[in-house]
Amino acid sequence: MVLNSNRVDHFVCHGTTTTIKIQTDIPIMQQSTPLEIHKVRLPPQHTTLHKLKHSLSEIFFPDDPLYTFKNQTWCTKFFLGIQYLFPIFQWGPHYNLLLLRHDVISGLTIASLAIPQGISYAKLANLPPIIGLYSSFVPPLIYSLLGSSRHLGVGPVSIASLVMGSMLSETVSYTQDPVLYLKLALTATFFAGVFQSSLGFLRLGFVIDFLSKATLVGFMAGAAIIVSLQQLKGLFGIMHFTSKMQIIPVLSSVFMQRDEWSWQTILIGFSFLAFLLIARHISLRKPNLFWVSAAAPLTSVILSTILVFLLRNKVHKIAIIGELPKGVNPPSSNMLYFNGPHLALAIKTGLVTGILSLTEGIAVGRTFAALKNYQVDGNKEMMAIGLMNIAGSFSRSAVNYNAGAQTTVSNIIMASAVLVTLLFLMPLFYYTPNFVLASIIITAVIGLIDYQAAYKLWKVDKLDCLACLCSFFGVLFISVPLGLGIAVAISVIKILLHVSRPNTQVLGNIPGTLIFRNVNQYREALRVPSFLILAVESPIYFANSTYLQERILRWVREEEERIEANKENTLKCIILDMTAVTAIDTNGMDTVSELRKMLEKRSLQFVLANPVGNVMEKLHQANILDSFGLKGVYLTVAEAVADISSSLKPQP
Amino acid sequence: MVLNSNRVDHFVCHGTTTTIKIQTDIPIMQQSTPLEIHKVRLPPQHTTLHKLKHSLSEIFFPDDPLYTFKNQTWCTKFFLGIQYLFPIFQWGPHYNLLLLRHDVISGLTIASLAIPQGISYAKLANLPPIIGLYSSFVPPLIYSLLGSSRHLGVGPVSIASLVMGSMLSETVSYTQDPVLYLKLALTATFFAGVFQSSLGFLRLGFVIDFLSKATLVGFMAGAAIIVSLQQLKGLFGIMHFTSKMQIIPVLSSVFMQRDEWSWQTILIGFSFLAFLLIARHISLRKPNLFWVSAAAPLTSVILSTILVFLLRNKVHKIAIIGELPKGVNPPSSNMLYFNGPHLALAIKTGLVTGILSLTEGIAVGRTFAALKNYQVDGNKEMMAIGLMNIAGSFSRSAVNYNAGAQTTVSNIIMASAVLVTLLFLMPLFYYTPNFVLASIIITAVIGLIDYQAAYKLWKVDKLDCLACLCSFFGVLFISVPLGLGIAVAISVIKILLHVSRPNTQVLGNIPGTLIFRNVNQYREALRVPSFLILAVESPIYFANSTYLQERILRWVREEEERIEANKENTLKCIILDMTAVTAIDTNGMDTVSELRKMLEKRSLQFVLANPVGNVMEKLHQANILDSFGLKGVYLTVAEAVADISSSLKPQP
Repeated sequence: MVLNSNRVDHFVCHGTTTTIKIQTDIPIMQQSTPLEIHKVRLPPQHTTLHKLKHSLSEIFFPDDPLYTFKNQTWCTKFFLGIQYLFPIFQWGPHYNLLLLRHDVISGLTIASLAIPQGISYAKLANLPPIIGLYSSFVPPLIYSLLGSSRHLGVGPVSIASLVMGSMLSETVSYTQDPVLYLKLALTATFFAGVFQSSLGFLRLGFVIDFLSKATLVGFMAGAAIIVSLQQLKGLFGIMHFTSKMQIIPVLSSVFMQRDEWSWQTILIGFSFLAFLLIARHISLRKPNLFWVSAAAPLTSVILSTILVFLLRNKVHKIAIIGELPKGVNPPSSNMLYFNGPHLALAIKTGLVTGILSLTEGIAVGRTFAALKNYQVDGNKEMMAIGLMNIAGSFSRSAVNYNAGAQTTVSNIIMASAVLVTLLFLMPLFYYTPNFVLASIIITAVIGLIDYQAAYKLWKVDKLDCLACLCSFFGVLFISVPLGLGIAVAISVIKILLHVSRPNTQVLGNIPGTLIFRNVNQYREALRVPSFLILAVESPIYFANSTYLQERILRWVREEEERIEANKENTLKCIILDMTAVTAIDTNGMDTVSELRKMLEKRSLQFVLANPVGNVMEKLHQANILDSFGLKGVYLTVAEAVADISSSLKPQP
Repeated sequence: MVLNSNRVDHFVCHGTTTTIKIQTDIPIMQQSTPLEIHKVRLPPQHTTLHKLKHSLSEIFFPDDPLYTFKNQTWCTKFFLGIQYLFPIFQWGPHYNLLLLRHDVISGLTIASLAIPQGISYAKLANLPPIIGLYSSFVPPLIYSLLGSSRHLGVGPVSIASLVMGSMLSETVSYTQDPVLYLKLALTATFFAGVFQSSLGFLRLGFVIDFLSKATLVGFMAGAAIIVSLQQLKGLFGIMHFTSKMQIIPVLSSVFMQRDEWSWQTILIGFSFLAFLLIARHISLRKPNLFWVSAAAPLTSVILSTILVFLLRNKVHKIAIIGELPKGVNPPSSNMLYFNGPHLALAIKTGLVTGILSLTEGIAVGRTFAALKNYQVDGNKEMMAIGLMNIAGSFSRSAVNYNAGAQTTVSNIIMASAVLVTLLFLMPLFYYTPNFVLASIIITAVIGLIDYQAAYKLWKVDKLDCLACLCSFFGVLFISVPLGLGIAVAISVIKILLHVSRPNTQVLGNIPGTLIFRNVNQYREALRVPSFLILAVESPIYFANSTYLQERILRWVREEEERIEANKENTLKCIILDMTAVTAIDTNGMDTVSELRKMLEKRSLQFVLANPVGNVMEKLHQANILDSFGLKGVYLTVAEAVADISSSLKPQP
């Protein structure tokens, strides 16, 4: 403590010192002459087992999920455990009427959004609309028990439904064999759930990280465009439409079936679309008017239904939903499809949709967590979302957040509202026209086209932008899952390229300091004559060891040419700043010792500055440190320069 | 220059300064009080095109192959170009009788090794022995024109031949359809050549780097064991032998055919094997006795042939080569196989063998280059080896080097010796027994089992060792190409893991200096009260941004707990040392700015220290620097600590 407290004084002195007097009695200054050479230490010894344990825990438990349990009594541990599994016990005790009021409001708001969207998304996955409602009724209940995000309103999400619809309908026609199709859809959702929750249980949350934001932006935009275009079927009242998901067949089947266009549908449809878009625009402009866009869908459903009901005798060309079975449909477990030819397809679809909904769900959860400053446990989210999906479901949260949801009670309210609809109000949807569902979908997905983000990518990071474009066009022209594949592949290749071609920088001294920095970045930094100071900006291992060797030798060659041109003092010593070399493998170590040999053959000294812990350790184990000797490894570049230059020059 | 020269003086002074007097007139010291806060600079602006050009040249031309051509006259450029393409013009002019003498000796030495090995390896790939000789006759001539390594003796190499033999014989039986088999083999070799040279021309040399040394060690060892075991066929005189390459079928077919064992073959065979192994051992012990192991194969061939010839009437159970066609066989272009069912197989085999021979060839070349201190151009090597392979060939160099080969003339000598053999001496091999070829192969491949390297891997890097073992057992039990695949996969996964779970270290101040280092590695480093100084040891991008965010927040939490436990001053500021953060993408930047928000919500200051060039640039483009403000980014941790602590504490 004493030590620490007087450390503070030092730094305070630095902060405030102005006169020589104070300065001289700051120990830190007096001693920091580069004369004093510090030893580079080895990290403390650890057993392989210990290291393994550590790295595994870093891989699988980076967030140290059980830290709250540390040094607690068994009783507390038990309660904490309950709370960990069921967050409801965290906020339950503090729940009060005020919170309830908020939740009721937001619950109903979501319900008014959930009911039409539920039906629409069901149509998007070519499922009977009732499934859509059903899936926005059960899952929220589960999530409100398990989920850790307070604002994650749950229900079917457009992209995932779309992907499922496309992947299934490429092999199974939902018109010819609706039952099989329904079975497959439910099975896929089931597998998505299993996949997600197992990811969660296995703590493999990080696989999601390999979908970079850039690729997702492109992917979502592409998917959104496809979805919107597909809705032209409903808006134009076209009967025969392709089941393909690429842009070309979709557009062609829009313009080939010109004879099927019904001007009445188009007229009314687009007016409703305009209404919804305007509502959305208003809410975007004035967040406190969020209810406008929230209420708009239900309103337009009601209006359009009445309209069509009145026109039912005059206009016959408007497609409507038609008969909807009333009541809660039987649990879909008996509908699952575990054998037969299409199982593989179901599983594949499940995986893709699972990953998609996860990424979106977690991303959304994180955003709101950041706003309200609490943390979302990725792996736990997966379990929650996964278990929901086992009963079939996805996410819709912005409204929930704006609607001021305080706890997941809002989900329960919403669920019950939907339940009521399921039980009693289904017949009212008989005359609901398809075009209004289409326009609801378009309004919902149009927000996924984040052109600003894309522009920012272009401005900031061209490579990210490329990845974004690739996944965008991959989705548009090839297929949705393949687009996703391309996106991931690009991300991984990007990593590998970055790893196999790391930067090497020439460092110079910033006048009047002991600081050495990249001479390109810092114009004031001066090269130290007869020294070449290189910083390697990456771990040195097999993927780049050959490159680095060649590159460093090239640096030396170019430096010698430069010196010859400028008639400076000849090159004596190469210092390799290892600060950013965060790891090294056997290839890397061979490279280092080989470089030493080669340079010494040219009578050039080769020393290392500031190797980090594990690198030191490995160099030591491989007996490379010994070959460098005492004068071969320094704590800082400054110390190396000072010490070596003193030995180079004859003393005055 | 003036500046530079007085820079030297500074450092000399540091080196030698002992008294206060000198110290005071070293400007560098007086000014380097942390009071003076330096600005973090942005790197100079470059256009996107310029950046793209730069990174592409780094990816494809890291070695700047054309640097010799810079600012030369056209005439010189032309000559340099010729020399670049045909190194023979580099050493040709300086060639003299002494060099010739060396080359003749080494050439003949290699020939004496090449002839028996050529025949043996041909048998290894189930090809007519003459192909083996043929392939050690043409390629050297090509290589001696194009190759850049002076010691790369070229001829068929065991592993590649083995892989080819195994991959082909899994589908095509060489006993039933020898012609098709031969065609396929030649086609595969041809494709290997095309693949290699195209890699070279496309400057894709770095794909080879993804075969790490560790995985190669395992792979080679596994392959060597398989090869040796297969030779038991010849040594035991077994007639019916499996064509499979896994260890189990091979061993089983060795011990199932016990009735076919002929004790004469076993007796003589093993004695010759012993002879060869002893010879090899001697040469390993005394490098100047290299000729012992070099001459041994030919000697044993001659001896065994005579022996069998004498015993031909008494012993009939010894398998011999038999009739060999004399003379140079017609160019194999008409033997190539470009259509029909097996083309895919041929191409696949070509790719695998191509990669294998490349890795080995280049590795070997590099080693000797390092010893003699000249550089080998990977991409150029590929072109050379590739073009050789188009006529079918591989590498054998240690002898060549020890035999004191000075230029590739030795290859020419060797080639002509082989040519002579082809033309006149083939009938002499009629009685050469198979067991001697088997023992030659075993002796050749036994050296590939590098158990010392494996042990070193275990000692130094457990993860590398794992990769090594996986590829080893992959080859032994699954299949050779799959083993290679596993090896590469492990290497890539290793990279991705390292990227997605980077280290974060807590830094402390080393008393009496401005240096901040990892507190685990440096016991003397002291944490600065009310500061948490974290160093991130990796680029921050999509693969690890989420993890890093969670991890850093966890560090903060744990630090706060520690402080509470020790009753220290409360945490005020988190400093993120970005020295090792060599790149950042959009996800990474979101993480940084989100961290700032979250920490500021807890009224914790969050500042960055020493962001490198491109990171600064991106943070600037994304307007994140502005959000950090002037007091948010420092050049060094020391300056950050000094400046902030002064503002924290009220002035005395």
